[in-house]
Parts: sequence; C-alpha cells; structure tokens
Amino acid sequence: MPILTPGTCFKNAFDVKFDLCGKLLTSAEALDAKLQAGEEFDFKKIIYSNLGNPHALGQDPIFYFREVMGLASMPHLFDDESTKASFEPEVIEHARKISESFGRGGTGKYTDTQGVMFARKSVAEYISKRDGYPAKPEDIYMCDGATPGIQMVLRIALREKTDGVMIPIPQYPLYNACITLYDGAACPYYLDEEKDWALTLEEMERAHAEAVKKGINPRVCVVVNPGNPTGNVLNVEIMKDIAKFCHEKKMLLLADEVYQRNIYMPEEFPWVSFKKIVCDLGLDKKGFELCSVHSTSKGMVGECGRRGGYFELINVSDEVRSAILKLTSLLCVNSAGQIMTHLMVSAPQKKGEGKARDACYDQYKGIFESLQRKAKKLHKFFTSLEGVTCCSPQGALYLFPRITIPEKAIHKAKEEGIPADELYCVEMLESTGLLVMPGSSFGQKEGTYHFRTTILMGEDDLEDVLPLLKKFHTGFMSKYE
Amino acid sequence: MPILTPGTCFKNAFDVKFDLCGKLLTSAEALDAKLQAGEEFDFKKIIYSNLGNPHALGQDPIFYFREVMGLASMPHLFDDESTKASFEPEVIEHARKISESFGRGGTGKYTDTQGVMFARKSVAEYISKRDGYPAKPEDIYMCDGATPGIQMVLRIALREKTDGVMIPIPQYPLYNACITLYDGAACPYYLDEEKDWALTLEEMERAHAEAVKKGINPRVCVVVNPGNPTGNVLNVEIMKDIAKFCHEKKMLLLADEVYQRNIYMPEEFPWVSFKKIVCDLGLDKKGFELCSVHSTSKGMVGECGRRGGYFELINVSDEVRSAILKLTSLLCVNSAGQIMTHLMVSAPQKKGEGKARDACYDQYKGIFESLQRKAKKLHKFFTSLEGVTCCSPQGALYLFPRITIPEKAIHKAKEEGIPADELYCVEMLESTGLLVMPGSSFGQKEGTYHFRTTILMGEDDLEDVLPLLKKFHTGFMSKYE
Repeated sequence: MPILTPGTCFKNAFDVKFDLCGKLLTSAEALDAKLQAGEEFDFKKIIYSNLGNPHALGQDPIFYFREVMGLASMPHLFDDESTKASFEPEVIEHARKISESFGRGGTGKYTDTQGVMFARKSVAEYISKRDGYPAKPEDIYMCDGATPGIQMVLRIALREKTDGVMIPIPQYPLYNACITLYDGAACPYYLDEEKDWALTLEEMERAHAEAVKKGINPRVCVVVNPGNPTGNVLNVEIMKDIAKFCHEKKMLLLADEVYQRNIYMPEEFPWVSFKKIVCDLGLDKKGFELCSVHSTSKGMVGECGRRGGYFELINVSDEVRSAILKLTSLLCVNSAGQIMTHLMVSAPQKKGEGKARDACYDQYKGIFESLQRKAKKLHKFFTSLEGVTCCSPQGALYLFPRITIPEKAIHKAKEEGIPADELYCVEMLESTGLLVMPGSSFGQKEGTYHFRTTILMGEDDLEDVLPLLKKFHTGFMSKYE
Repeated sequence: MPILTPGTCFKNAFDVKFDLCGKLLTSAEALDAKLQAGEEFDFKKIIYSNLGNPHALGQDPIFYFREVMGLASMPHLFDDESTKASFEPEVIEHARKISESFGRGGTGKYTDTQGVMFARKSVAEYISKRDGYPAKPEDIYMCDGATPGIQMVLRIALREKTDGVMIPIPQYPLYNACITLYDGAACPYYLDEEKDWALTLEEMERAHAEAVKKGINPRVCVVVNPGNPTGNVLNVEIMKDIAKFCHEKKMLLLADEVYQRNIYMPEEFPWVSFKKIVCDLGLDKKGFELCSVHSTSKGMVGECGRRGGYFELINVSDEVRSAILKLTSLLCVNSAGQIMTHLMVSAPQKKGEGKARDACYDQYKGIFESLQRKAKKLHKFFTSLEGVTCCSPQGALYLFPRITIPEKAIHKAKEEGIPADELYCVEMLESTGLLVMPGSSFGQKEGTYHFRTTILMGEDDLEDVLPLLKKFHTGFMSKYE
C-alpha cells in the first residue's frame, strides 16, 4: 500500500475537474502520428484549434519583443561592436534600460515580491492611459500569467463551502477548478445566447438569490470580458449594472480581461475596462473592491510559455494585500514574464521610433488584422451551415457556434457515454483534422450543444479546412437525420 | 467594512509566518539610502548577505547559458550572417537545437504540463550519470524553481492537522509556511550542532515518537542536504539510516537537494543523493516513495529570477501523479526556466567543445573556487572570534555561526522585545553594513544563538568587511560584558 494514495491525500486535488481536451486530444495525437507515418486522410494536417495557444498554431512572436527580452539578459554584450551589427540601436537601448531597471544582479536575481518596479510602472501608465483614470504601481502585482492572480484572489477569499463565487456559464473551467480546490461554492449565472452571450442583470440577480437561498454567501463575482469561450464583448450599460450589483451585494469583482486587445468589431462592440466603469460611477471612492487580471499569453503577443501577467487591486485592504504578498513571497515571479509584460503594455503606438520598433508596430497590426479577418470569415462560414448559429465575432480568440444535433446522434452519443457535442467534435476531427472543444467542457444550457474553436489557425489552413468542414457538417446532419 | 478582511478570508494565509528578514531588511535599506545620500559610515556599502541570491551579490551569470537561452527565443536570427558575428557557433547550434526541441511555436507556446521532453531527458541523463542508476524522463517534473515542487508534494500529502511532516530545525522557513498553509502538523527534529549539524537516528526516532504520541501521523520526512542554514553535508551512513527509517515508518522522503553542487570539502564531506542511497539499499524496488528537488537558483548558476527547477518522483502512484499533473496544468511551467535547467544539468564537463563552452567551463570553475575560498575564509574568521563557534564549511551557500551572547545583551533584547540574536544582527548591520539573518528566523535550540550569512559577497567586499566585523564583535562582547 503506497503512502500517497487518493484516499489518504488532499481530497480536493482529486475532485478538481480540469481536463481541457482529454480524450479528444489523445485521438488527435494518434491521428497526427498516422499522418506523420504517411497514412492518407482527407486532410493534410491536424489543426490544434482546441487551445488559445497562438504560437503553437503558427502565429509569429513579436520579434522586437523577443530581441529586447533576450538581450536584456546578456548585459555582457551591450557594448560589443558585433552586437550593433546584429541588433537595431533601439533594441540595444531598450534592453540596456530594462537590465539597469532590475538593479544590481539584473534579471538573474529574485525580483521584488510584488514584481520589479519598472514593469509595475509601465503597467500603471498603460492602465492610466487606457482608462483616463490614474493607476498606481502600488496597486499592480506582477504574476506568472493571469492564472496565479486569479488563483491568489480566490485562495484568499474562500474559507469554506458557504463562500460563493459567481461564475459565468459557459466558462473557462479554471474557475470551477479553483473553487473546488479552495473549498468554495460555485454560483453559476448563465450568459444569454439570444443576446449575443450578453450578461443580464436579471440573471445575475436570479443566480445570487439562488445561492443565498442555499445558504451560500457570494463574496466574489467573476466576469470574463471579452468572453471565453463565447467571444462576446460586454456593453457599457450592462457593465454599469454589474458594478452596481456587486457593490450592493458586497462582492469583490474579479474582472478577467486577458482578451482586452482582441476586439474585432470595435465600432459596434467596443471594449471598456471594469476599472473605468467603476471610476465612471465613482464607486472607486466608495470602497469598491476590484481585481482585474491581464496576461501576455493572449492579445497579439501570444507568449503563453513566457508566463507574464499582472493583476491590479483596487480598495483591497492592507492586511489582505500583506497576506497576498506573503503567499507570493513563497515563490518569486519570473523575470522574463515581467519583461514581456512591460513590452506588451508599452508597445509602439505609432511609426517613426526606429526600424525595429516600426517593424514591431507593423507586426502587431498584421497579427491583429489577420485575427480579425479569420474571426469574420469563420463566423460567416459557421452561420452559413444548416442548423448552426453563431454570435457575432466580437472579441477574444474564439467562436462558440451552436449546433442543432439530430436526435439519432444524441442517441448514439448516449450509447457511447459521451456528450452529444463531443460526438460531433470526434467526428469533425476524424473528417477534417480540426481539433475543437465540445461545449460540454465549458457548461451550457441543458439541451443546447456547442463547440469552441480558436481563430488561430493560419489563413492558408482555413482555406483548406473550410470545405472539409462543410462536407463533414452536411454529412453529419444527413447521416443522423 | 471591506469584503476581504483577515476575519472573513482564508485563515491559514494570515497564520503563515514567512518574513525572511523583515525589520532588519528595512533598516538595511534605510542605511543604504543614507549611504547613497552621502552620509558617512565605517563601511562603504550594505552587503545584503541575508539571502541566497547570488547575482544580487555580484556573482556573474554564466554567459554561455544566457546567450543560448536568449538566442533560443530568437529563431528568426539563427541564419543571419550578423548572428554569426555576435555568437560562437556552438551557441547558435545549441539555441537552434533547443528551439526545435520545443516543437512548433518554440518557446512561446504553453509547454507540456510535465515540462518539455528535451529538458526532462537532460535531467534524467544528469541524474543517471550522477547516481549510477537509471532515471526516467517520465519521473521528472519541471517546475518554476524548487519551491513549486515542494509546495505541490506537501499540498497533495496533507489533509488535516493530524497529517505530519518531519522537518529539520534549524530550517528554511518555507517548510513551516507550507505546513501552516496546507493545514498539516510540523514534527520538528533537531540537527546536532555538536556533530557538525548532523542528523541522528535517535533524534529522528524521538521526534517521530513525540508526534505519534500527540496523535499525529507523520507522512512526509523532509531532509535538506546540503543543509540550509547549517551548510552541513550528510554522510552516507546516516543517510542510509534515514532512508530505512522512512521506509519503516511509511513516510515519503522529500529530499531538498538544491545545493547539491555547492560542496566545498568533497574529500571529507562528499555529497551523495538520496536517490542513490535508496537504490543502493534496494529500497527503490520495495516501493520507497521519494521526491527529490533541484533548482537553477543555487549551485554555480544562481539564476533565481529565472525560476527553473525540477522534481523527480520515485514510486509515487499513478493516481497521485495524475492529480499532481492536473494541478500543474492549471498553471504552466515557464520556458526560460526549463531551458536554464537543461543548460545547468548539461554544462560542459571538460574543455575542447568550442570557445563559448570552454569559457563556460572556466566560469563555472571560477565561481566554484571563489565560493569555496570564501566559505573557508569566513569559517576561519568566525572561529577566530571569542565566543563564536562555527561548523566546518561543508556545503550550500551559508555559514551558521553560533554566538555566545552576554547576559546583558540578552536582557536588552528582552526589553526591546526581540530575540537576542536579532539584537546582535541589528548592531552588526549598523557597525559593518553586513546584513545577515538571526538564527531565531530558522529555529534553534532554546538558549542558543546564531546567525546565517551567505558566502556570496565579493572577495573584495570580504577584505573590507572582516576587519569591521572583528571590531564590531569585540565591541559587542565588551559593551555587554
């Protein structure tokens, strides 16, 4: 009998559900191996469109960022003549400035627990400019991607099963996983697919009341904007309602805003931060508690492996901040992620700042326009299919089409013991090589079926896969008619 | 009344004690500011010898590692002619190989949950060669420094107040902090200062029996070797006793071996891994559960800000491994830390592999020899002082001298409400500019007093500070006589 067994270990770790694409991913990898071995299929490659992992799907890193980040850890080369041959002057100067900002020991020493000051200052400047309200470096906490920030706030806020967290459905499963891990209670509210996945105050009130009726005290309200997996962007009026609602019900608002730069219909669906909404309403002066997270993994940067991000805390008490810092000090934030976050928030906004920064501006723009084109193209395609609806491609890196699954297919899925949309995704993978995630992984209204695809595949890949998708969908519908 | 308050949040987060150098550090920074402002003191600088943070104290990064790591994230430059002017061929080739090993998307994508395979393979090869027993990449888990590995194992192993963890005293306070955070019980065993801080089986048995008597079930036994803060290196015979003891008492052995390369008296006090001991005894075939952690933050690499490390799991059940991977997958290990870990474990062992690798070999050797010289010099110095004893400088980055504090000083400290060795450290700082940590931060036998200093200050700094230290110590002893 081993010492560490499920029965004798921390139970929550086993109860957590976080299987982003389990069996489907295994199938995709098996198919991939067959392809590599020369076996022939209707498709030429597997497109891993299951994860918001931009570089893995072929998106280039921003070369300027990579050069500055890399060179910032090579201070011994700053003054070499050959360095000037390899790197543009603004790359060397930026790298030097960053290296010096770390202070003695550069990027190799433990950084301040809250993160290096120069990065926190850059973030505060970015937020101030973005919102038109001043942000302070003292409120910025650098972290290894957005996730540790989310985990930290939920870890601190939850004590027991009656401490509730309002979460959207459909949702990115991280939230449920953390709530299970930290012994809290999930209080789900449903996004309204009829209204382009908007959030409604009535539904928030219903969900809150339901929680209270069960003896749960909702302490945190999670809002993901732009939405994952739904790709919606909230409008200002509903955001105001949510802020007032959180204030009234005494909930900290945890604003997951990692897709804030992925806004594809900015005229109809502009993005505004919750920080700005809270300040517009004057709630920041009334003790409104807000945590907003951002990350280098999404946007046009897509540096997932870098682990860069930050969270901003508004009106959180000093004692709680001290506890957060103490827990953070057990670890240490990585320096490359902090550099990348600094680069992300201080990216050039116009041309004329040197060859490398101009190239950065162009690359940024190019990546954005490509994402926008792909979002619109995929949306147009999905809505052209029989029995498929799809909300407008407003933001984030995803579309979340709804599929009408024929009764026979539902029956077959039941026999196989899998959700009906998983069956759809399995057959899609086998026919097209496109790997997507079933809606059941995110939660959805009973009796509705969806899948989430990223918009990250190459534009060439899109040309190849859309005809296959059309054929597959038509075939699926008639096969199970 | 705020929403998040100490009274309404996760209690353990507030109960955790992890203040590595709180008030003393603040005083040092205040002194530093005065120095910068031109105020005159007996010393020219503050030496932050409180933390094992090599680069902050002036240790150079290994340039070869930095260049390979940096360039591995600039694949767009691999084939540029100018790159060949800036970097040696083996740097470019190594960077290219690493970049390709990450697969499509390079260092910017989410890496495999357990870590990239090439890094795990390098680690497994290193361990196999080190111990003479095969290690498997499947048993290696890459992590952001050693701490997340330690946290993960303790998080999984602890359920409730009766789940015990045997920890050494004096100890690096991370262990106590995690045990508080995860609701376990610390079962302290004392290292024997009379025997050069050795661990004795009698003391382990006493500590275990005491825990059992209190209704605690010790499930994990932590051994730190080389020791922190004590700098001792365990001998093979006692290691065998410990392994057998863990086996008999059904405890997982958590071997904190982050200082495995910092061995300064290798003939008298050679270092052997617990993996080798367990295999020598054949216990690996009898289900012995072992977790061994290593890090890029110490050794000759000293890359604390990089967050690189790994842990090896032996005989831990598949179910528990799955749970560990699931929790790990909520986050993602950073890519630069994995590259640095790969570089650390595959550092050149001989010359003749190219100019950059030869320079790496020399730099490694130079750093090691300097650490060894400083350890011996500091040891010789401390043992020359009246009323000070200090165990031989066997390993790690620290010395932990014991000081006889005069009654009057003990009395004064009591009046000031601080431990007597903290008073000693405060006065040392004010007289010499050297910041060290009081023994009370690590735990020590009642009535004994120590401080921990790193051996990381520059050799020049040492020349300056030793006469000041001698003067301070003599003055302190006569002042409170």
